[in-house]
Amino acid sequence: MDAQRILEEKQYTTLEVSQRGHIAHIVLNRPDAMNSMIPAFWTELPDAVRTIDDEGIARVIVISSTGKHFSAGMDLSVFTNMAKDFTGDPARRAERMRRLVMLLQDTFTAIEQARMPVIGAVQGGAIGGAVDLLCACDMRYSTEDAFFTIKETQIGMTADVGTLQRLPKLIPIGIAKELAYTGRNFGAQEAQSFGFINQVFSDHDALIDGVMKVAQQIAMNSPMAVSGTKTMLNYAAEHTVSESLTYMATWQAGMFQMEDIQTAMHAQKTKSIPEYPPLHGGIHKMKD
Amino acid sequence: MDAQRILEEKQYTTLEVSQRGHIAHIVLNRPDAMNSMIPAFWTELPDAVRTIDDEGIARVIVISSTGKHFSAGMDLSVFTNMAKDFTGDPARRAERMRRLVMLLQDTFTAIEQARMPVIGAVQGGAIGGAVDLLCACDMRYSTEDAFFTIKETQIGMTADVGTLQRLPKLIPIGIAKELAYTGRNFGAQEAQSFGFINQVFSDHDALIDGVMKVAQQIAMNSPMAVSGTKTMLNYAAEHTVSESLTYMATWQAGMFQMEDIQTAMHAQKTKSIPEYPPLHGGIHKMKD
Amino acid sequence: MDAQRILEEKQYTTLEVSQRGHIAHIVLNRPDAMNSMIPAFWTELPDAVRTIDDEGIARVIVISSTGKHFSAGMDLSVFTNMAKDFTGDPARRAERMRRLVMLLQDTFTAIEQARMPVIGAVQGGAIGGAVDLLCACDMRYSTEDAFFTIKETQIGMTADVGTLQRLPKLIPIGIAKELAYTGRNFGAQEAQSFGFINQVFSDHDALIDGVMKVAQQIAMNSPMAVSGTKTMLNYAAEHTVSESLTYMATWQAGMFQMEDIQTAMHAQKTKSIPEYPPLHGGIHKMKD
Amino acid sequence: MDAQRILEEKQYTTLEVSQRGHIAHIVLNRPDAMNSMIPAFWTELPDAVRTIDDEGIARVIVISSTGKHFSAGMDLSVFTNMAKDFTGDPARRAERMRRLVMLLQDTFTAIEQARMPVIGAVQGGAIGGAVDLLCACDMRYSTEDAFFTIKETQIGMTADVGTLQRLPKLIPIGIAKELAYTGRNFGAQEAQSFGFINQVFSDHDALIDGVMKVAQQIAMNSPMAVSGTKTMLNYAAEHTVSESLTYMATWQAGMFQMEDIQTAMHAQKTKSIPEYPPLHGGIHKMKD
Amino acid sequence: MDAQRILEEKQYTTLEVSQRGHIAHIVLNRPDAMNSMIPAFWTELPDAVRTIDDEGIARVIVISSTGKHFSAGMDLSVFTNMAKDFTGDPARRAERMRRLVMLLQDTFTAIEQARMPVIGAVQGGAIGGAVDLLCACDMRYSTEDAFFTIKETQIGMTADVGTLQRLPKLIPIGIAKELAYTGRNFGAQEAQSFGFINQVFSDHDALIDGVMKVAQQIAMNSPMAVSGTKTMLNYAAEHTVSESLTYMATWQAGMFQMEDIQTAMHAQKTKSIPEYPPLHGGIHKMKD
Amino acid sequence: MDAQRILEEKQYTTLEVSQRGHIAHIVLNRPDAMNSMIPAFWTELPDAVRTIDDEGIARVIVISSTGKHFSAGMDLSVFTNMAKDFTGDPARRAERMRRLVMLLQDTFTAIEQARMPVIGAVQGGAIGGAVDLLCACDMRYSTEDAFFTIKETQIGMTADVGTLQRLPKLIPIGIAKELAYTGRNFGAQEAQSFGFINQVFSDHDALIDGVMKVAQQIAMNSPMAVSGTKTMLNYAAEHTVSESLTYMATWQAGMFQMEDIQTAMHAQKTKSIPEYPPLHGGIHKMKD
Repeated sequence: MDAQRILEEKQYTTLEVSQRGHIAHIVLNRPDAMNSMIPAFWTELPDAVRTIDDEGIARVIVISSTGKHFSAGMDLSVFTNMAKDFTGDPARRAERMRRLVMLLQDTFTAIEQARMPVIGAVQGGAIGGAVDLLCACDMRYSTEDAFFTIKETQIGMTADVGTLQRLPKLIPIGIAKELAYTGRNFGAQEAQSFGFINQVFSDHDALIDGVMKVAQQIAMNSPMAVSGTKTMLNYAAEHTVSESLTYMATWQAGMFQMEDIQTAMHAQKTKSIPEYPPLHGGIHKMKD
Repeated sequence: MDAQRILEEKQYTTLEVSQRGHIAHIVLNRPDAMNSMIPAFWTELPDAVRTIDDEGIARVIVISSTGKHFSAGMDLSVFTNMAKDFTGDPARRAERMRRLVMLLQDTFTAIEQARMPVIGAVQGGAIGGAVDLLCACDMRYSTEDAFFTIKETQIGMTADVGTLQRLPKLIPIGIAKELAYTGRNFGAQEAQSFGFINQVFSDHDALIDGVMKVAQQIAMNSPMAVSGTKTMLNYAAEHTVSESLTYMATWQAGMFQMEDIQTAMHAQKTKSIPEYPPLHGGIHKMKD
Repeated sequence: MDAQRILEEKQYTTLEVSQRGHIAHIVLNRPDAMNSMIPAFWTELPDAVRTIDDEGIARVIVISSTGKHFSAGMDLSVFTNMAKDFTGDPARRAERMRRLVMLLQDTFTAIEQARMPVIGAVQGGAIGGAVDLLCACDMRYSTEDAFFTIKETQIGMTADVGTLQRLPKLIPIGIAKELAYTGRNFGAQEAQSFGFINQVFSDHDALIDGVMKVAQQIAMNSPMAVSGTKTMLNYAAEHTVSESLTYMATWQAGMFQMEDIQTAMHAQKTKSIPEYPPLHGGIHKMKD
Repeated sequence: MDAQRILEEKQYTTLEVSQRGHIAHIVLNRPDAMNSMIPAFWTELPDAVRTIDDEGIARVIVISSTGKHFSAGMDLSVFTNMAKDFTGDPARRAERMRRLVMLLQDTFTAIEQARMPVIGAVQGGAIGGAVDLLCACDMRYSTEDAFFTIKETQIGMTADVGTLQRLPKLIPIGIAKELAYTGRNFGAQEAQSFGFINQVFSDHDALIDGVMKVAQQIAMNSPMAVSGTKTMLNYAAEHTVSESLTYMATWQAGMFQMEDIQTAMHAQKTKSIPEYPPLHGGIHKMKD
Repeated sequence: MDAQRILEEKQYTTLEVSQRGHIAHIVLNRPDAMNSMIPAFWTELPDAVRTIDDEGIARVIVISSTGKHFSAGMDLSVFTNMAKDFTGDPARRAERMRRLVMLLQDTFTAIEQARMPVIGAVQGGAIGGAVDLLCACDMRYSTEDAFFTIKETQIGMTADVGTLQRLPKLIPIGIAKELAYTGRNFGAQEAQSFGFINQVFSDHDALIDGVMKVAQQIAMNSPMAVSGTKTMLNYAAEHTVSESLTYMATWQAGMFQMEDIQTAMHAQKTKSIPEYPPLHGGIHKMKD
Repeated sequence: MDAQRILEEKQYTTLEVSQRGHIAHIVLNRPDAMNSMIPAFWTELPDAVRTIDDEGIARVIVISSTGKHFSAGMDLSVFTNMAKDFTGDPARRAERMRRLVMLLQDTFTAIEQARMPVIGAVQGGAIGGAVDLLCACDMRYSTEDAFFTIKETQIGMTADVGTLQRLPKLIPIGIAKELAYTGRNFGAQEAQSFGFINQVFSDHDALIDGVMKVAQQIAMNSPMAVSGTKTMLNYAAEHTVSESLTYMATWQAGMFQMEDIQTAMHAQKTKSIPEYPPLHGGIHKMKD
């Protein structure tokens, strides 16, 4: 398949990316370094996500990792790199800092902007920047031994690449505050109790297996329906009901698709698997 | 009572509407067709809700249904009707589609706009459009065997009459996404665990009994206080705390009522049931 | 310490305020009157909170109370006082009412605006205005026997000093509505199940002990990091993710502090307790 | 034509409504009473506008009037009617007042919601409620002797049916404030200088003639293009540029119409008048 | 009159404050120093405005100044004072800076929050901070020789106490940008052409005379009507039409005042001057 | 200079880009084709703007063109290209259309997002897409013979790349509507009267000369001050005053720069030209 070939040719150094059927799988593969987020990671992840999105073949993206821990978060080398460029008066350094933070934030916003759902699958520790990544995913699943921590608070800084912006929309804010102010670890069971984690699995194999089953369920649905659903839910989380309803109607004006409905109904009648055409791909190629 | 008579004269074909004391009860009564939502339903439901609201006597509205299932959602005849009118070029069909969706959405928005709380009482399946209806209710209660499904995703379309707009304000969005992307069934217990359902009852009789007790508790409070509370909670869910506080103060400027407070206090002292005057009714009659 | 002396000199009649290390403690101390909120309370509480905030030494504020109940809410004398000033035509009385409600709301908004987290610790009943107070806190902890009630509904009025504005951002709105429409009591366990209460303790001593441990954890972190976290979480709860990310980057431009990070890292390496400088204090003294 | 017949059968008592080609014309025709807005007016105007809109044949609506003055605004009989229904305690009267004001506001909101542009053509005085009406129009034209006044301020009340809500989006707010605080008359020339009036004509005949020419220009364009333009401009006036662009793209997804573009281009080549199909009509008939 | 006495006792060093009838007059009276804004000014101005507002007697506030120029803006001593307190690490200094700017901004926000309109009357130069002050006024009038400049840009800083926040709501933004990016002077005539200045007068005497006539016109109207109008216009400038209409109706529920209407009508019939009761005053005294 | 060399190496086919001192100049240079916007233009313009912005040397960007007309707008070849890719069912084509429009919109959004002001200089006709481009500029200047038209309406489509989204924030909306609904030409004088054009010049040479003088004035100011001013004005145009003030204070926390102020003051004292360091450049290079 085209998408798979394009991704293979990318030769990422921090990720392994594959696509089977309608499920794309991004694996953080620097287990020896606890998948810490080195400079290359911050450009490779959005590149992978946007490539998959633009191809339009995948209907779900799963992000998982290898080794004992999901990810140790921001690698110290990023801070070091940052420091090198920080010259000039304080105001100009501040202005550069602002733009740099926006650049880093954009890495995880790519997850949010992908047309297809993105699922995070977590084993072991998900620390600091890893929590920022997970907050940008649509859903999160984990092993029993998984734990999470908004580590930034404990190392003297305010978390700045997405956790504080997205968490209050994911879990009760009183709990989000305790976790963020203390920076303490919280485990899989606790995380599930307040809705941060959708489901907990016994171990890494069971986790990948379970997540792939959810992914399969989604991939069996029309990609137009699922993509519209993601756009609408994200919109509704940030707008009034009244604005969201009007936006929905405007969306539906063009996107209501009798063909997919007929495909679905035919499949249900014949107890077969529906075959939907893919989303349109390749829009960014127009640029060339 | 006037309100009851007006409602009786309406002769709805898809609903049975009654009002006893301060509790109005709307029952979906096409059990043989699994209370599927035929064209008549989409005008009868808002008509019933708005009539009850305008009369101003009821202090709570309960919506329940008969038969094995709460409702099978949108009836296929609506799609068929729709198709007949879809002529002309694609753009004009799209514009018509947009207005039609807004018309259908308005059916459930009537529930949200009613001055008094609306309670949904669910047995068996609540499928597709039925979930949209329930999301517009203030609270939801169900039997143990109740189950829910955002069916639209599985039949190849994006749910468009309210579920996707209201659900992210009702339950944690990570869970909302799993339910909407997969379109899978979720049961009463699961629904209660994340706050979609307030309480689960053993069977239909216990459900109606339990819901009526909650309704009674509400009906014993001042309708001015309850109506103000509904308006404020809905407003606050969509505005900043600061804007919501100012709106509250502006509301209270006119609506703070010493008379109801005195009535309440007198009743507490004498251990009697407080008798509050009704909300003002009949405003839409001015039109005639 | 300066802050402590300033607070001692204040000689509040409804509060006892102390500050030990980086934890300030405000105690409602009219147990014989069930800590009902008399006119003096409405100016003393914001004065205490703003004084502590402006000094900038404390890193957490704990609000607890003495006696069997946390607080019985608004004292009737406030209504009586109110009534005396309500002269003139209905419109002018309404305008006065509006401004008065805004003045009372401001008491609890002081909690929200403090730079450091504010924790509510509850035993026994928290009734009416007490729930408004707790909703403005960052986190809430309680004893097993604690119970809460949005009492206003049962005494014929719409709660107007913050509960209805903040609760829909704290717990699932379907549950918030049941509690507000009925005005019924809800206990500690129930409150914890939907995220209103972070943790439940066996009795008052265990509660204060537990809360102080959480406070200690927070106080060991950089006050700049914690203060930034509070500002960001409160902002994110009311803005889109996109706006919140940009605001974060703008904040970080000036507030990213290598010194605190180095202090934190040194402490972790040496297994010692990090010593951070305080927030800047005394800004309001410029006025003199 | 169907639309014309439907409108004729309506037999309005305060309006004369006609439709020629693609231009609908609503004339206030109680010149002897200075076209004051009696109770019937408040239901007839929205009924006329919504009927024309729903038919979908007209591409512009012109609102003008007969006699020396455009309109004297609210008729005193509305206040008198209002008073009759105002019984009960102050809070319940306030609640009724709130709903009544919303009902009256809805009359002019119908103008804003119509799919086609609505043009106001003014001679003589436009007083109080007449300014509210004009603010809801898309554009305003007048004779030289026209004058306007936010009269409400001078009769002891805050204008409440739309002027204060729409004027700050139409003219510089510093000027809007002077006009609203003083309630003074302002003439056609002044009104044109700050953009409230698009063009001034010598007398009533020239006005109607000029307005009809503008209306013709609009009516010669594709109704899909003009209707989309109205929706987009109104949306943009109330949202960020970023949100407005996304909404535009979502709209265009369904509404971009090659057929109308081809019709337009063919007409330009052949120097003929383009013939576009009408907007879809009759959606509200589905209700029957 | 009470209000006058309270103001006299204040003994401001940078202002002269008087109140005659329903018009309060604040005069910047350090002409020898070109009315530059020294530290005392930043607390005296809001104190004067809030005192007048709280008394509730005045129906308009006029701000003018003495000497050749309206005001030279921020006095350099403010920067010097600022510098003294700026100790500690860069992040803490930044946090202090943020709070300090908010404190200074609050000085002009007091103008916006006053219940009665505030008019700025300008002769000579209005430089830097003086433009910030004027932007917060409801209306602005000037002499022919008046000129304005967003001086901050030319002295190497971004204007930070209100001009950039309020100007895009006062004049076309393309013009605002030229003025702000260049920092050039613009004169009275130019300022009037784009709506920044309402009216231009020949000299200082004519200016005060003219402004007082406008103030008189406003003071002859019901203070409830004018105050409601200010609140509504400011709200509408920042919200959608739909939200503004609902807010208007909620306001009117309590504030619609038959008594003032009757007073107005009686005065019109008898060609006398209407006598309205004042706004309620003294709410902040409850604090003592 | 580095920036100049980078731009030269780009070898754009639709633009000529140069940078002299602190002024970058982008010239549309396909005069024979009336500078119509061919596919290459849509990627070259944002590439040029973002390159200049990222280098950080320029303090103003001027966009002008050659030939008789500024630009004829969208080239027909874009529509043709578009058509080729539009395969599949209507819903998928709609989804592609949506993304394509967003891609085209992004071209002009680059202008808005540049840290330095962008000035449009217009001679002859600015048609369709050219008006979209100009609306995204900070300021607009033109020759006497310039004219503008929202041509899209007359060719049967809703303008979709920015005019309708930005115009209501630039000029009075009643005028914007007439221009957009009719699609008529409007000239330089008219455009200046309502603030769309800042200043009108006699011919093309005088225009470029005049615009360069404005650019020089801006370039003599601190780039930090000007860039902050642009960010603040754009923000304020879309947020409440209260939110904008807080954002300003947060910005100023890091960006207040004593060094530039001292440079400015020293220059004023010595009547010399201030020399400010440039904005930080090269942030996007971190990606490599």
